[in-house]
Amino acid sequence: MPQKPTKPIYVLNGPNLNLLGVREPDIYGKTTLDDISRSCVDLGKALGFKVDFRQSNHEGVLVDWIQEARTEASALVINPAAYGHTSVALLDALKTLSIPVVECHLSHLATREHFRHQTYVSKAAAGIVAGFGAKSYDLALQAAAHLALHQA
Amino acid sequence: MPQKPTKPIYVLNGPNLNLLGVREPDIYGKTTLDDISRSCVDLGKALGFKVDFRQSNHEGVLVDWIQEARTEASALVINPAAYGHTSVALLDALKTLSIPVVECHLSHLATREHFRHQTYVSKAAAGIVAGFGAKSYDLALQAAAHLALHQA
Amino acid sequence: MPQKPTKPIYVLNGPNLNLLGVREPDIYGKTTLDDISRSCVDLGKALGFKVDFRQSNHEGVLVDWIQEARTEASALVINPAAYGHTSVALLDALKTLSIPVVECHLSHLATREHFRHQTYVSKAAAGIVAGFGAKSYDLALQAAAHLALHQA
Amino acid sequence: MPQKPTKPIYVLNGPNLNLLGVREPDIYGKTTLDDISRSCVDLGKALGFKVDFRQSNHEGVLVDWIQEARTEASALVINPAAYGHTSVALLDALKTLSIPVVECHLSHLATREHFRHQTYVSKAAAGIVAGFGAKSYDLALQAAAHLALHQA
Amino acid sequence: MPQKPTKPIYVLNGPNLNLLGVREPDIYGKTTLDDISRSCVDLGKALGFKVDFRQSNHEGVLVDWIQEARTEASALVINPAAYGHTSVALLDALKTLSIPVVECHLSHLATREHFRHQTYVSKAAAGIVAGFGAKSYDLALQAAAHLALHQA
Amino acid sequence: MPQKPTKPIYVLNGPNLNLLGVREPDIYGKTTLDDISRSCVDLGKALGFKVDFRQSNHEGVLVDWIQEARTEASALVINPAAYGHTSVALLDALKTLSIPVVECHLSHLATREHFRHQTYVSKAAAGIVAGFGAKSYDLALQAAAHLALHQA
Amino acid sequence: MPQKPTKPIYVLNGPNLNLLGVREPDIYGKTTLDDISRSCVDLGKALGFKVDFRQSNHEGVLVDWIQEARTEASALVINPAAYGHTSVALLDALKTLSIPVVECHLSHLATREHFRHQTYVSKAAAGIVAGFGAKSYDLALQAAAHLALHQA
Amino acid sequence: MPQKPTKPIYVLNGPNLNLLGVREPDIYGKTTLDDISRSCVDLGKALGFKVDFRQSNHEGVLVDWIQEARTEASALVINPAAYGHTSVALLDALKTLSIPVVECHLSHLATREHFRHQTYVSKAAAGIVAGFGAKSYDLALQAAAHLALHQA
Amino acid sequence: MPQKPTKPIYVLNGPNLNLLGVREPDIYGKTTLDDISRSCVDLGKALGFKVDFRQSNHEGVLVDWIQEARTEASALVINPAAYGHTSVALLDALKTLSIPVVECHLSHLATREHFRHQTYVSKAAAGIVAGFGAKSYDLALQAAAHLALHQA
Amino acid sequence: MPQKPTKPIYVLNGPNLNLLGVREPDIYGKTTLDDISRSCVDLGKALGFKVDFRQSNHEGVLVDWIQEARTEASALVINPAAYGHTSVALLDALKTLSIPVVECHLSHLATREHFRHQTYVSKAAAGIVAGFGAKSYDLALQAAAHLALHQA
Amino acid sequence: MPQKPTKPIYVLNGPNLNLLGVREPDIYGKTTLDDISRSCVDLGKALGFKVDFRQSNHEGVLVDWIQEARTEASALVINPAAYGHTSVALLDALKTLSIPVVECHLSHLATREHFRHQTYVSKAAAGIVAGFGAKSYDLALQAAAHLALHQA
Amino acid sequence: MPQKPTKPIYVLNGPNLNLLGVREPDIYGKTTLDDISRSCVDLGKALGFKVDFRQSNHEGVLVDWIQEARTEASALVINPAAYGHTSVALLDALKTLSIPVVECHLSHLATREHFRHQTYVSKAAAGIVAGFGAKSYDLALQAAAHLALHQA
Repeated sequence: MPQKPTKPIYVLNGPNLNLLGVREPDIYGKTTLDDISRSCVDLGKALGFKVDFRQSNHEGVLVDWIQEARTEASALVINPAAYGHTSVALLDALKTLSIPVVECHLSHLATREHFRHQTYVSKAAAGIVAGFGAKSYDLALQAAAHLALHQA
Repeated sequence: MPQKPTKPIYVLNGPNLNLLGVREPDIYGKTTLDDISRSCVDLGKALGFKVDFRQSNHEGVLVDWIQEARTEASALVINPAAYGHTSVALLDALKTLSIPVVECHLSHLATREHFRHQTYVSKAAAGIVAGFGAKSYDLALQAAAHLALHQA
Repeated sequence: MPQKPTKPIYVLNGPNLNLLGVREPDIYGKTTLDDISRSCVDLGKALGFKVDFRQSNHEGVLVDWIQEARTEASALVINPAAYGHTSVALLDALKTLSIPVVECHLSHLATREHFRHQTYVSKAAAGIVAGFGAKSYDLALQAAAHLALHQA
Repeated sequence: MPQKPTKPIYVLNGPNLNLLGVREPDIYGKTTLDDISRSCVDLGKALGFKVDFRQSNHEGVLVDWIQEARTEASALVINPAAYGHTSVALLDALKTLSIPVVECHLSHLATREHFRHQTYVSKAAAGIVAGFGAKSYDLALQAAAHLALHQA
Repeated sequence: MPQKPTKPIYVLNGPNLNLLGVREPDIYGKTTLDDISRSCVDLGKALGFKVDFRQSNHEGVLVDWIQEARTEASALVINPAAYGHTSVALLDALKTLSIPVVECHLSHLATREHFRHQTYVSKAAAGIVAGFGAKSYDLALQAAAHLALHQA
Repeated sequence: MPQKPTKPIYVLNGPNLNLLGVREPDIYGKTTLDDISRSCVDLGKALGFKVDFRQSNHEGVLVDWIQEARTEASALVINPAAYGHTSVALLDALKTLSIPVVECHLSHLATREHFRHQTYVSKAAAGIVAGFGAKSYDLALQAAAHLALHQA
Repeated sequence: MPQKPTKPIYVLNGPNLNLLGVREPDIYGKTTLDDISRSCVDLGKALGFKVDFRQSNHEGVLVDWIQEARTEASALVINPAAYGHTSVALLDALKTLSIPVVECHLSHLATREHFRHQTYVSKAAAGIVAGFGAKSYDLALQAAAHLALHQA
Repeated sequence: MPQKPTKPIYVLNGPNLNLLGVREPDIYGKTTLDDISRSCVDLGKALGFKVDFRQSNHEGVLVDWIQEARTEASALVINPAAYGHTSVALLDALKTLSIPVVECHLSHLATREHFRHQTYVSKAAAGIVAGFGAKSYDLALQAAAHLALHQA
Repeated sequence: MPQKPTKPIYVLNGPNLNLLGVREPDIYGKTTLDDISRSCVDLGKALGFKVDFRQSNHEGVLVDWIQEARTEASALVINPAAYGHTSVALLDALKTLSIPVVECHLSHLATREHFRHQTYVSKAAAGIVAGFGAKSYDLALQAAAHLALHQA
Repeated sequence: MPQKPTKPIYVLNGPNLNLLGVREPDIYGKTTLDDISRSCVDLGKALGFKVDFRQSNHEGVLVDWIQEARTEASALVINPAAYGHTSVALLDALKTLSIPVVECHLSHLATREHFRHQTYVSKAAAGIVAGFGAKSYDLALQAAAHLALHQA
Repeated sequence: MPQKPTKPIYVLNGPNLNLLGVREPDIYGKTTLDDISRSCVDLGKALGFKVDFRQSNHEGVLVDWIQEARTEASALVINPAAYGHTSVALLDALKTLSIPVVECHLSHLATREHFRHQTYVSKAAAGIVAGFGAKSYDLALQAAAHLALHQA
Repeated sequence: MPQKPTKPIYVLNGPNLNLLGVREPDIYGKTTLDDISRSCVDLGKALGFKVDFRQSNHEGVLVDWIQEARTEASALVINPAAYGHTSVALLDALKTLSIPVVECHLSHLATREHFRHQTYVSKAAAGIVAGFGAKSYDLALQAAAHLALHQA
């Protein structure tokens, strides 16, 4: 059995996700990004990993964080939100990583507007989990931990 | 806390998946579809669900099974394989269901040939898990159980 | 005045139509495929034709039945459902017929998803009736009988 | 049983249909638009409806007539001919109607040139009958009467 | 400060706009085209312009009016309705004008069906106001008056 | 040598051509449509044909005139202007003719905006002359006379 | 008559608009963004609204400001400039607002390069004003105030 | 010189090929699929191979047979007929084979309807023979035998 | 009246036109390219121009001839045949000319295969004559002479 | 039994095929075009035909040779190499032939770059053999001989 | 001979280029962005220019720097990396410059993924150098200096 | 330090480049292809290479020269002009080379007509220099020499 890596799993969140649970709670539910952050940290502990959970509305900041993950993280979960569809810069940053990358979305992209059906991020991710709301993070984190342990 | 449904979760598999682990084990790994079936049954038990795991190379048989799931299952996980990309019949069958549907793929479709980037099945699924090999079934089954419990 | 052919009119139905009237009766109405079958048989009698009414979820079975119609039917009405959009095999089978072919749909394809706007079956049909629910079969059967009498 | 509406069914015909039966009778048959008009009036009587049958080569005149039908007709059958493919104005006029609209074509559009495969009119019609020559009007009128009685 | 032109501003309206306020008042509001006409005349007065407000369902009539505006108007506001999307003839007529042209729409085209996203009229207009209901005419008229005064 | 037909050659002109020579004479030249009409009549005489030269901004009027040409003309030259690109109705009218049809344009469509590169009218014309200004009519008339004499 | 909201109207400006009036004043005019800002503040006063006028070259900053407007503004006017065509992040931020959004452009997008014909921002805006230079802001602000008063 | 494999060459035929020679013999010739089967068996003998010749209208059955060929055949010739254009399942099955695959068609696809110009099967075939009627099988079988001997 | 240029008009012909009148004379007529050459020389005389008539199957030779025409010809008529659709080299050569260029085709390109609907040559030609068989050369030569006289 | 034609079969080869076997022999094999030529001559003898085998890098020369084949050959095999994808001139030359044409390629075009998937040559060929290396010539020559004997 | 400008040449670098030489040195080489910076400064000296070399992962920062170059630089070399493909904001900023702009890429875009084949930046650049690794900067700087001297 | 190769660098030029400096010198400058040739020879000397500079209007000749370069040159610079966009034959010839290939254009393709944005040649080139007029050759030659020395 492989030894658990000691570096944290980064969970990065793109633009507007900071409004989760605040806006239209009757539609999107009352779960906030802070709730998800806490839940990820807890699940991380159960899986033996520290979780570093961040959000930014700035594409460049997300690029910086991904570059930082090259040496500081054992795996990366990313919900790129809108930047997933438009940012080749995120793609290029992710392609510099040798650690596992898991893409994660609250909603099921395939059933939304046409321009949301595909993401650049997908081209650099090992896999995707989408459509299960906050539960998507739970599953994506499991996948990331699984890959970090078995690829290490 | 919601009561667990007593009907099984169907896990349906499309064409050529019966060859898993048999063909090119050095590439696709030695895990067979039987291995995955057993693993799903075990995880199902842990989640409180019976799992009914099936495979067919015949589009019509898959349609029949999906129709059967309308009254006999509490949730449905489907790896449609090649039929995901070509079968409107599967889509129409899935759209008749009121139980949760989770799409599942061994490989990450977004990094394969262009004609595999999208599936008809996605239009009728709550969400998707793709790219984590046999682990995809594990996560998809969790998602299906989660939805079955919280939508019930 | 032309003499009525003695062979029956085949009315073939594609995948998932067996669920008609069973699923979501408040939306699609309570008319079942059996009701439509009986109504066709009755109207056939009035028009002087036996009606042979069948349904299958299997593309290959539909191909077999169309081939059978080559020698056993005086006309063919087909509601190909999902296979209308994806099956070149149905098209090729229909192109082997010299009897009249009438395409029939419950809903109006032009107002549904883009991938349902056209069918391969149309390329081998004399004409189409779509959008009038169970009444579509009534009109399609009249058209088929009309063509059988005037092309004979 | 619903009471029959007392307003007539409008049957509107687009450009060049006035030449029917006159031009190339060996190809298109000798049936003229007047013949079809008389046949519709007769069938209308049998169905309990007056039929108001008109033709124009002018898009604006057809728009005027459709607007008139808003208050003066119980249903509308339209063979838009060429304007079906190019006229958003007809579509917008039809969308103002609350009475049933049935689209009707002599030929089967799906087997003609690509630019004839779809019509704007379809987006505002309950259904379509196409491909059966003069018989198309017969079936379309039945459909219109059927809808007028059951939607009224 | 420039001297005000003595010629009127033409406000031309395309097909089906005559039904405004009449059809489905609960959706589109009770404002009729006559109300808008009166409002434009009043605003015109405040801006120092006569307003000539017309509507037609006939593409050719609209072309005639635009040609007339070449010598008789100081600016032109046009809500081409459906003809905006299909009429190169309107475009060509507008391109013969040297007076300012302002395009105006009740609804926001960018959020309607795809075939309404662009208009030929736009290629000959100085600018566009769209999406504010009857208020769109108000703003478009201000724009036209502004351009007439500053381009004169 | 074939005998000259006694019916005139129709020369039909579409929308906005009535402004020729009037608008921007420094760009389009001072030749008016009347000048071209006179020149066509003269050339027609030299070729042994009466010439019937007309213009309309109304699509429906042009359809009427083309239908009239079926029995009243020996050949037809048409400069459809904007309607060439948008009118399937003109195409259908032209397809009912058995006399020769020649398409004619002042400018060279292939070097203008993309949506002017092709016309529906072309599908029903024997040939095309485009790009030579008023001279295009001269050449088109010669072509029409030539075809009228040799197809007669 | 509705009571005027006490929150300001935000007027947000995207990348490179800070150069307005500075670069190529002979082409774009000498009006600077500061001039427009002052003009908006003045017009706002006349309409009974404070105006908060800002510009940034950073997509993320614009997202932050839009989020801020959720609770701090009574309406929002946005000239997204280049980000209108590329930023799904702006779209998603705008979709979280329940206050009116008005899109505004100096130039008429429909007459510029093809990739500028549509904006993501349009999908979340009530309407658009484009093509009238600095006057566009004037009209957009009127529209925003109008909507703020009548939707409030 | 390589030793001849002892396993047979599979020659698989898709939907509707069972009608060959029966339908419209004046067009397609009187050669039946049985004739071709016999001719293949004879040629196979001359080349030193047993030939296993089969036909099915069912996509799933063809998938089953291809899977069987993995261990039971030394090469595979396939005329997928209609399924060549629509079946990713056949493609995936063929991609599991390590024996040579030769695609074969009676007609020349490049000169038929557009949707027949390419096949999924081609992506998994070593090469193609098309357009020579029954002679195509003869040449394809030679190719398959050649590859079986030289790749073995 | 302008003085006639003393340089000849070049009439250049592309690949396979040397077979005119030889191959399938019952379809394409018995007129050979030599017949057309003689007819052009005669018409040229009547118009006051020498005619230099050439044909080549080699793209490079046609480029050489066009370059030669820069200094040696007063106008150029070109029937590029197949190279019209594929040769940017011909286009670039023609764009170096300041003498008039007239494109000429025997058949009406708009009614042939899709890939023949447009030519690169058109982008450098003043105008086009197409569809009138050998008569096309007659009209094109008149156009070239007309332009040579009035542009000189 | 038909009598064998006395004219040779032309086997024409397009650009860069002269380098076969010379360049990268470890990838493409050591078989040179001369080897293939000799093998074709030998097989021709066995089939009762002389074989005339040629190669050129010049499109015009290939056109010349195809024209020559009209009267001098009994059938034509062509490996157009790169010109297959770009040369309408080759297509037009081939369409003048009444002898059988067989297209031949060393590699399987369907598995190469997208722009190699289709050829203009295919539109004029009876059939195609592709993907079997030097063996493709062998099979193509058999097909050509077969057609020459049975079409003669 | 023109006098050398005294302002520096800006060399701007887009996202992820800071990782050059650090990540996968066995593939991309060990040359870091600092190495390239030093080499540019040295070459600049030889050419008589100061070089101002910068990198940022933030689109907005790059827009700021380009705006700054309007008054502070004599020429601009830009390797936009990922933002070249997605940023209309960079394009608009570059279009405000009157100094020469040279686009520069380490790799040859035409041989990478399809979405990298074109850049918005190209629309505002005088020219491009791509594909020569660090040498690309050397050549681009020469080009920029050349243009700065000859356009000045 | 690597030893300099003794074979020359080929600089090949495509169609119409022989007219450089001759045609429209006020637009394209007075630099002729001979000037560029001399300048390349001189720069070659400075870099330690002989330069073999050629031009042809014939695609086949260019293919021949590229094949010759396989054994006779140490590197190849090519300005394919028009053939870059249309010639797969040039691409295939270039792909046979193991020496470095540098693509070179006088103008910046990305800012010209759409069909000039990409070239087949790019697929076989190490890199590209475009947009700097005659200076492009200078830079391309440096690149070629650099690659010849470092790849040797």
